[in-house]
Amino acid sequence: MQALVSSAEPSRPIRFERDYPDPRPRAGEVMIRVHLAGICATDLEIARGYMQFAGVPGHEFVGTVTAGDPHWIGRRVVAEINCVCLECDLCRRGLTNHCRRRTVLGIAGRDGAFAEYLTVPARNCHVVPDTVTDQQAVFVEQLAAAVHVLDAAPLEPGARVAVLGSGRLGLLVVQVLAVQDCRLEVLGRNPRTLDFCARRGVRTSYVDEVVPAGEHDVVVDCTGCPDGLRLALQLCRPQGTIVLKSTYVEPAALDLAPLVVNEVRVVGNRCGPFAAALQLLSEHRVEVDELVSAVYPLYRGVEALEAAARPENIKVLLQPGLK
Amino acid sequence: MQALVSSAEPSRPIRFERDYPDPRPRAGEVMIRVHLAGICATDLEIARGYMQFAGVPGHEFVGTVTAGDPHWIGRRVVAEINCVCLECDLCRRGLTNHCRRRTVLGIAGRDGAFAEYLTVPARNCHVVPDTVTDQQAVFVEQLAAAVHVLDAAPLEPGARVAVLGSGRLGLLVVQVLAVQDCRLEVLGRNPRTLDFCARRGVRTSYVDEVVPAGEHDVVVDCTGCPDGLRLALQLCRPQGTIVLKSTYVEPAALDLAPLVVNEVRVVGNRCGPFAAALQLLSEHRVEVDELVSAVYPLYRGVEALEAAARPENIKVLLQPGLK
Repeated sequence: MQALVSSAEPSRPIRFERDYPDPRPRAGEVMIRVHLAGICATDLEIARGYMQFAGVPGHEFVGTVTAGDPHWIGRRVVAEINCVCLECDLCRRGLTNHCRRRTVLGIAGRDGAFAEYLTVPARNCHVVPDTVTDQQAVFVEQLAAAVHVLDAAPLEPGARVAVLGSGRLGLLVVQVLAVQDCRLEVLGRNPRTLDFCARRGVRTSYVDEVVPAGEHDVVVDCTGCPDGLRLALQLCRPQGTIVLKSTYVEPAALDLAPLVVNEVRVVGNRCGPFAAALQLLSEHRVEVDELVSAVYPLYRGVEALEAAARPENIKVLLQPGLK
Repeated sequence: MQALVSSAEPSRPIRFERDYPDPRPRAGEVMIRVHLAGICATDLEIARGYMQFAGVPGHEFVGTVTAGDPHWIGRRVVAEINCVCLECDLCRRGLTNHCRRRTVLGIAGRDGAFAEYLTVPARNCHVVPDTVTDQQAVFVEQLAAAVHVLDAAPLEPGARVAVLGSGRLGLLVVQVLAVQDCRLEVLGRNPRTLDFCARRGVRTSYVDEVVPAGEHDVVVDCTGCPDGLRLALQLCRPQGTIVLKSTYVEPAALDLAPLVVNEVRVVGNRCGPFAAALQLLSEHRVEVDELVSAVYPLYRGVEALEAAARPENIKVLLQPGLK
């Protein structure tokens, strides 16, 4: 089958292959034909060597089950990315997303969705309602991660909240928070995505014009770079919460004294609940269609990754069937 | 009066002065004759330029009130270090230790205790019970900070807890945690202070021999250096808590991806409740006498600071009256 393949060699980390071996579902797994896959920041980091991942990247997708458990065959699905053992201490504790033996679609130990087909455990699948299009469904994984911000920082009514970064993830986090009882603002650099937020009634600022005053109860860092946490530490009030969504390859040189002096909580935050995300999309409470900047055929995947890295593009999708 | 004085010049930051101006209590303040003052890591950081503090350092002390409100005169006291306005948004919110207009004894905007006398707001004072000696009372400020760890990381029964660093602060944190329902261990480098912990029934390990396995529910970093947080991130289980007590001058180059991937909470933690600390000391539930390595006269204060920086010394005290 056709696939994008990462070799984990920094010199030429991602290439298109026309004859990558077809995946074969193991016990409990289903095979899925990919309709659409989304490129996110983690994929770009993997292309730069993050996780030393070798194999097919890609973890945001929607597709149709073609083999495995007959119950699933023919269904249009999205799938959670952590494939877990349900037996280790963390799984038994309910922290299945942190399973000590997990593989992660297109990120660690398991091929992902930048291909014509992939296999996943059947229990990871969620049926996509008919009211949600393929282009919308491909956002479920990232929207679930956005919803998960609420688990890290329960909001008191009227809380002052800042989202740093108006990129792919930031725009979803903003939409999730916009329907909460809080005073929300988004700080970004891109006039077009800031305008997207402003049209939804969210206060916007150019990040370079902000004078941080240590007044925000919650700051969500979706910048993807160490400067985000640096600014978040200046914006956050004493004993406030910073939700850190960004992973980056380079170690960041950070002055952590403000974290201690101001007794701030910094909470790492990763994967979230698919069911809640599917519900938001099926009720049309989150706008994602406008976030699609381009759809590339899979064979132009390397080009698509380059496009996804450019700030003028928000979401770039890969479509295996496209000519 | 005699005092140690920091000029905030890196070239020669701390000197002894024989004729530093006597302090004069303002409205609401009392004047205190210092019996004993303790040197802590923050003082050593100030000596290296932290906070660009100019004036008399020192914030751990015990003394007798000599002027001000007659109610207080003659009483033996310790005093909280944050001098606050009670009017700003943070004070009104109950976060008085984070008052936006605060001065901090010997750390920010206000002379401290490495002197014969200092002034503090009367409301900052706590009377020292007769059952607590001067040498014990000088530990109240740091013991309060140790007690405050419990506010940052409420412990579930049987929680697995690691304290990193068996120095001045670590030994107090260990003693506070040792009486909680948790599985406690301390990781350090100093055989003598690790032995102090072992004699109190606490499991000890040499930090260089530890193989981190991401299994601790709570990790308290009392190392005072960036390596502490680095190790804490390896020790802490997914969705566990790291309590960060260390402030250091140098920005730390840290790989924060594990914080996000493992959804760890890092909580800064500073000053704590004096009343709880005084109670622990008056009930002899915490051993501090053994932690005093040396008592220097104030005029040998520069030498005392050098001694406090050496790992073989735990707590070094300054006694203005000593010849």
